[in-house]
Amino acid sequence: MSILVVGSVAFDTVETPFGKAEKVLGGSASFFSVAAAFFAPVNLVGVVGTDFGEKEMAAFRGRPIDTLGLERMDGKTFHWQGKYSYDLNARDTICTDLNVFEFFKPKIPPAYRQSAFVFLGNIDPLLQRDVLEQVERPKVVACDTMNFWIKGKPEELRRTLRKVDVLLVNDAEVRQLSGEWNIVKAARAVRAMGPRTLIVKKGEHGVLMFGEESSFAAPAYPLENVFDPTGAGDTFGGGFVGYLAAAGHTGDAVLRQAVIMGSTLASFCVEAFSLDRLLCLTRAEIDERFRLFRRLTHFEDI
Amino acid sequence: MSILVVGSVAFDTVETPFGKAEKVLGGSASFFSVAAAFFAPVNLVGVVGTDFGEKEMAAFRGRPIDTLGLERMDGKTFHWQGKYSYDLNARDTICTDLNVFEFFKPKIPPAYRQSAFVFLGNIDPLLQRDVLEQVERPKVVACDTMNFWIKGKPEELRRTLRKVDVLLVNDAEVRQLSGEWNIVKAARAVRAMGPRTLIVKKGEHGVLMFGEESSFAAPAYPLENVFDPTGAGDTFGGGFVGYLAAAGHTGDAVLRQAVIMGSTLASFCVEAFSLDRLLCLTRAEIDERFRLFRRLTHFEDI
Repeated sequence: MSILVVGSVAFDTVETPFGKAEKVLGGSASFFSVAAAFFAPVNLVGVVGTDFGEKEMAAFRGRPIDTLGLERMDGKTFHWQGKYSYDLNARDTICTDLNVFEFFKPKIPPAYRQSAFVFLGNIDPLLQRDVLEQVERPKVVACDTMNFWIKGKPEELRRTLRKVDVLLVNDAEVRQLSGEWNIVKAARAVRAMGPRTLIVKKGEHGVLMFGEESSFAAPAYPLENVFDPTGAGDTFGGGFVGYLAAAGHTGDAVLRQAVIMGSTLASFCVEAFSLDRLLCLTRAEIDERFRLFRRLTHFEDI
Repeated sequence: MSILVVGSVAFDTVETPFGKAEKVLGGSASFFSVAAAFFAPVNLVGVVGTDFGEKEMAAFRGRPIDTLGLERMDGKTFHWQGKYSYDLNARDTICTDLNVFEFFKPKIPPAYRQSAFVFLGNIDPLLQRDVLEQVERPKVVACDTMNFWIKGKPEELRRTLRKVDVLLVNDAEVRQLSGEWNIVKAARAVRAMGPRTLIVKKGEHGVLMFGEESSFAAPAYPLENVFDPTGAGDTFGGGFVGYLAAAGHTGDAVLRQAVIMGSTLASFCVEAFSLDRLLCLTRAEIDERFRLFRRLTHFEDI
């Protein structure tokens, strides 16, 4: 089944302890699309400026990613610049130039309106709802958000959450959204707002999923060389939603596998700058690491 | 097979956001022994003062815990006082009165010298080695340590580690001990110091095990009510070593189950002050939560 993703397509300038990359392809919808397209066709809605050229577009070519919905506006593409601490656990945003992204009003092409799976990237909850009004009865709506909207537009966000099936946030965000410190209580409060499945991303500490039938905990893959964490969360989202779309449903067993698939894709993403590792990744490598995750977590019953 | 444990037996005064407990039973060897005794006989070596009465000793009675090696000295029992932050993730030590523990020189009773499993609690690495010199060819030596010894007695600790099979530390300690930030590299460096198996305890984020045959990752059980984290690490150690001692070996599959058993016991420990929850715990409750851990982490192969 096909996936509609709406989010940012950007240039990132990233400095890590291991090097610096200048104006490389980034943005939530970029990472998401390339990860998801390993599993299902992706319809991409976003906006870029006139500085976004064939070199950047090449990342989406030769994959089942439709870019009809990637609008081109006069002006510059969204640019984010950040610098990571020596341990990669903290990052400072040096600048955020919204540029054309400031005026982003998602327009869903008619051909996209029957997408069965929708992923609402981290944008204004009002725009997220506007996207939902343009699509026809999607099977599953997944959604990302961030502290900026939780604090800045709580009422709009609440309204959007009522229409969401799966919410993907990090541990700080689920606490902020619920006002509860304890993660189990926080998850219950957030699920009561609408999403029947809540994914809590904890970076190097893995992922917790709170679902209708059960809870599920997955570690992050212990990597020897983490090069650049930028985009790991969005890549997780792409692997997760992509795997669900390929399965065509969100049963408990498939949700669990999808969490591992998201973690698998994210573990590759951080091995290089930008989408570099994802763009040379093969399905065989993905499946091999998925199996390593099983080896990493499996234990026998007593 | 029987387990020899050497460590602190103490009074704890603990304040959490949920209440305060004054001079209740604590100490690494206490938590360890009660947890381990669910699986195998325990020989306890420690020291208490004259203020350690029948009420405290009752915790060890009616269980396979031999207290012949629990020395009684003139003076007061080791007393630790701490206060936890609102989120239980940080704690301040308000006072540490070593009392008789300052003069602790472990004396291993002859009846204990053939213990197959040895757990060296967090004491001076010189004393840990002294314990090993008093025992006869144990099958497995497990060991805990802390930042105080890593910084204060690095050479002594290195010498002890050469004689250790399984080292249990937290993530900050493994980084400090190795001088490596990346946990995979840190684990390799620490394993090169002697321990063939390294257990990295990450509190609410679970446990990583780096072994000869494989690595293993286990989450912490997501609890709705964490009351007091004191002793969780030592209780993990007791469940872990206890399970190994019952199996009688440290094969890869048993090590993995032992990590889950340690995590299971620790998840009960934090539900109440002191050893209160462990002392009313049944084997049926333990086995049930072990199975919940399987439900929490299991996913199907693709």
